[in-house]
Amino acid sequence: MKNGLFITFEGLDASGKSTQIKCLSEFLVSVGYRPVVTREPGGTLIGEQIRAVILDTSNKGMDYVAEAMLYAAARAQLVAEIIRPALEDGRIVICDRFVDSSLAYQGYARKLGGMVDVINSFGVGECTPDITFLLKVSPETGEDRRNGKAPDRIESEDALYHAAVSRAYEEIERKNPQRLIGIDGGSGIREISIQIIERVNKELAARGL
Amino acid sequence: MKNGLFITFEGLDASGKSTQIKCLSEFLVSVGYRPVVTREPGGTLIGEQIRAVILDTSNKGMDYVAEAMLYAAARAQLVAEIIRPALEDGRIVICDRFVDSSLAYQGYARKLGGMVDVINSFGVGECTPDITFLLKVSPETGEDRRNGKAPDRIESEDALYHAAVSRAYEEIERKNPQRLIGIDGGSGIREISIQIIERVNKELAARGL
Repeated sequence: MKNGLFITFEGLDASGKSTQIKCLSEFLVSVGYRPVVTREPGGTLIGEQIRAVILDTSNKGMDYVAEAMLYAAARAQLVAEIIRPALEDGRIVICDRFVDSSLAYQGYARKLGGMVDVINSFGVGECTPDITFLLKVSPETGEDRRNGKAPDRIESEDALYHAAVSRAYEEIERKNPQRLIGIDGGSGIREISIQIIERVNKELAARGL
Repeated sequence: MKNGLFITFEGLDASGKSTQIKCLSEFLVSVGYRPVVTREPGGTLIGEQIRAVILDTSNKGMDYVAEAMLYAAARAQLVAEIIRPALEDGRIVICDRFVDSSLAYQGYARKLGGMVDVINSFGVGECTPDITFLLKVSPETGEDRRNGKAPDRIESEDALYHAAVSRAYEEIERKNPQRLIGIDGGSGIREISIQIIERVNKELAARGL
């Protein structure tokens, strides 16, 4: 029974997801909602432990299937513990990354294909996003915006990998024209934030939330 | 290309698996083999990190699907890093627990059913055991043999859970009469060890190893 609104943000690292999530949630709070904001991998105590294993730069030899399973495990925990109860309770849930990230990073760029869909379906069930904002920046932008901060294991992957993820996101956008809203991540923070707020406002009105 | 021999040990906690694995591997070394001995969950640096998350008693609220994914992740890493290369190299691999444990503990006792088979198939592929020794003890024996050692998160489950696992193993044994060799874990260590060594000896002879 999904009564709330489930919004996810997707895009390359440093595409501006955190900034926009902050703007959207602060807007929602200011107009009287109590949005649940969470992130992947992680978002729960168990998920954060899994996140640490996934992103640890010393885990260089991680098998791609094992990696996909770890993301799916953290996601299953997040859905069970946070997302599903909040949506059943009629809340707005905003999640930084969700299944699309696994499809892009593991399914396409690691070439694992359809198994990513299959393993995620078990943990996610009917808890699929209603709207997904895809912040589109070139792979180089992400690199520039990191500003010398030490990269985690996924950020350390080479440029070809991030270019493949970028193409994957474009394909996911083509396949899900209703749900995915592509946004030029190169625009100013305010312009992007207004686009997002307008769209969320429409969805809330349409659902009577 | 599986050229070696893949042996797994299954059974309830404290059914004597570690003791028998030690006896078998020492026998094999004494007659000139170099068996690879490993365990689940764990067996690799990444897998041991995942094991710590799975068995941490503070992770009581772990979602069952997340738990099954974590076992599958640790297993995928173990297969990719240790088991597959060793078997391709013609080695004897002895593993303390494998997919049957997930079928029994998660598939049957947690009632996750067929999804456990599906998610494990991705990481395991053709690396299925040639022989599996199932050490059969009553659920109470496991409890007694722990000798006051603090139980981990799985050992802390109630008696009904361990009884369900025990019944699950019986069903897995019925379904795999060729591969599974049920052994009365209540017999003496020497009697059990001789049964195991005799059976492994036959398999090695049949394969010309």
